[in-house]
Amino acid sequence: MDMHDLTRQLMIKNDSKIVMLVADGLGGLPMTPGGKTELETAKTPNLDALATRGVQGASIPVKPGIAPGSGPGHLGLFGYDPIQYQIGRGALEATGIGFELQQGDVAVRCNFCTLDSEGKISDRRAGRIPTEESAPVAISLRQIQIPGVEIFVEPVKEHRFVVVFRGEGLGGDVEDTDPQATGVAPLTPVARNKESEKTAKVAKEFLRQAREILKDQPKANFHTMRGFAAKPHLPSYEVVYGLRAAAIAVYPMYKGLARLVGMEIVGQAQTLQDQIDVLKQNWDDYDFFFIHFKYVDSTGEDGNFDEKVKRIEQLDEVIPQIEALGPQVLIVTGDHSTPAFLKSHSWHPVPTLLVSDCCRPDPHTTFGEATCITGGLGHFEAKYLMPLALANADRLGKYGA
Amino acid sequence: MDMHDLTRQLMIKNDSKIVMLVADGLGGLPMTPGGKTELETAKTPNLDALATRGVQGASIPVKPGIAPGSGPGHLGLFGYDPIQYQIGRGALEATGIGFELQQGDVAVRCNFCTLDSEGKISDRRAGRIPTEESAPVAISLRQIQIPGVEIFVEPVKEHRFVVVFRGEGLGGDVEDTDPQATGVAPLTPVARNKESEKTAKVAKEFLRQAREILKDQPKANFHTMRGFAAKPHLPSYEVVYGLRAAAIAVYPMYKGLARLVGMEIVGQAQTLQDQIDVLKQNWDDYDFFFIHFKYVDSTGEDGNFDEKVKRIEQLDEVIPQIEALGPQVLIVTGDHSTPAFLKSHSWHPVPTLLVSDCCRPDPHTTFGEATCITGGLGHFEAKYLMPLALANADRLGKYGA
Repeated sequence: MDMHDLTRQLMIKNDSKIVMLVADGLGGLPMTPGGKTELETAKTPNLDALATRGVQGASIPVKPGIAPGSGPGHLGLFGYDPIQYQIGRGALEATGIGFELQQGDVAVRCNFCTLDSEGKISDRRAGRIPTEESAPVAISLRQIQIPGVEIFVEPVKEHRFVVVFRGEGLGGDVEDTDPQATGVAPLTPVARNKESEKTAKVAKEFLRQAREILKDQPKANFHTMRGFAAKPHLPSYEVVYGLRAAAIAVYPMYKGLARLVGMEIVGQAQTLQDQIDVLKQNWDDYDFFFIHFKYVDSTGEDGNFDEKVKRIEQLDEVIPQIEALGPQVLIVTGDHSTPAFLKSHSWHPVPTLLVSDCCRPDPHTTFGEATCITGGLGHFEAKYLMPLALANADRLGKYGA
Repeated sequence: MDMHDLTRQLMIKNDSKIVMLVADGLGGLPMTPGGKTELETAKTPNLDALATRGVQGASIPVKPGIAPGSGPGHLGLFGYDPIQYQIGRGALEATGIGFELQQGDVAVRCNFCTLDSEGKISDRRAGRIPTEESAPVAISLRQIQIPGVEIFVEPVKEHRFVVVFRGEGLGGDVEDTDPQATGVAPLTPVARNKESEKTAKVAKEFLRQAREILKDQPKANFHTMRGFAAKPHLPSYEVVYGLRAAAIAVYPMYKGLARLVGMEIVGQAQTLQDQIDVLKQNWDDYDFFFIHFKYVDSTGEDGNFDEKVKRIEQLDEVIPQIEALGPQVLIVTGDHSTPAFLKSHSWHPVPTLLVSDCCRPDPHTTFGEATCITGGLGHFEAKYLMPLALANADRLGKYGA
């Protein structure tokens, strides 16, 4: 029995609204010993007011010491154990460009490469061919036809593109064809199990036709295939939580991740204020709202401490508009830490804040890394945040008599 | 997928050095209500300086409420789940006397006993025969020969000795022959599974020859066999963490435990300063150093609060020599608590300190039981300390994209 078995069994439906505001990469580090983090430096009167009314804690995205990518980071926040549920590379790449995977699809990351006259790889990335050159070449592969299989080819960036096979009986376990070396020929797709034999055969035929189509290209005269992956099977928010869930995100990756757990993508917001407007417009139609704010992470990745501080302050400014809608539960968190000091995702726990009429407030009156470690939510794995949200929304019954 | 699958998959190799300084039995209790613990009483300016720069937490050796022996206590610190990985009694006894078990060996704890004229046990410990009498008797059993099996007999203390069988096809699952009662005959070794049938047969033959050899002994005229155990299969530090690891310990038990996880035993230190000298001499040749300091535990076991305080102060004094080497990660912890108040190992969480340039320091400026419970590492199972160490040494890549 896992947490989803529990939430399914104890599920109560009511009219409550839950808002989860995710500041991507929220957690940080001081730039100098004894200094403050980005969140602690930012002027956040609204978050501090929430901290006074609410309860905070330190969310461990996956397990202690493990820095997650966006996929596992969000799965944890959504309540899906990020070790139990894994999204294959191909599926994540397709998701990231906004491709709507269907059950049974197999997605593959492809790299254009250059073959020499003997058919050996001389450049595994086709000279990092620029996107404006590579995209039309990728699109030229859309002429490939294989009976019984629907094929999608989508350009990504530079030498990268995605291929999706759709059809009956396609397993996702096929070996990469990239030999990870130059001076050797690309490998042939090999199935890792019986269920994936058809996929390997289809991939082989795709490569055969691609070789013919690409043969006169100066750089991108062939391609490799990596990270074959079926659409992961994630039970939906409706099924495991009884929630009609909406996602309000700007970037395709986060829309895609939300779609994988059965959220509906609402609006076409481009700015944070757009996102809040979309929230208001859709308030009556959903029980749960995931709002994704990207720029806290991207400024952290750039190592730009001051800019990350500003982005957190920008986030703080919209809080009153969310509160005015009167959600039963309001959560502010991040999918992982992205300290400007490290310029990368990190393993450090993420400051997480939960406010409801029946949360048990802790004594803190500000929100940050130093306070969250002694907050009322303790140190907890991110996957427990959703059960806490449901409980605070009175959406979980008693376990056992 | 467990933590070792994760650390294996995400492993990065670099030139960083990790030092884990284990003060055996570090955690303590006040002797009187409202008093301080041993660690809080000790003058530890160097540990306090580390606490100011670093992050502390409360390490739970196994699970809440469980007081571990040295075996599970160290396995946890080494990152091996002490419930998943168990070291059989015989293997631990052999390890504790410095016997180097090989893969496939089966070790057995033996007790000399006294049989009456009817062959029934009249004393299960042969009158607790003193070591100087029992050791030569144990050594006399080295004349036992069984075709196809190499046999080692090692005296331990008083009525106890160890037998190790080495050969092909020896399983470790054989029932004890000690009936746990007097007035009855010893039991016959019985295999618990097919793989251990040969072991049971070998043990039976060993006992037959031993009975003959011992028959004229006044006290130790026979022996029982308990805790049959194969060498546990523990994947090595090299395999699960990519670390060349060295152990610097004085006592055979801790050298043996370190050897079981693939650490190399370096130096022949007798004192703490010797241990630090060995650390310096071997600094360039390893990535990870386990330094074991025994006397914090033994003074706790003696119930000698003041002496335990002194031993902690002695440990504090060598810290600057370790820091001067410039490890990327320095950890100070214990394998369990040994409060002088209890004169025994206990279940209480162990104050644990981690210092690195990218740890997220907490507000504490001293190191002890009261501070660690509100430290930035939170309350965590000891098995997560190694992933945290690796992360802080930049030796773990991102999980998922």
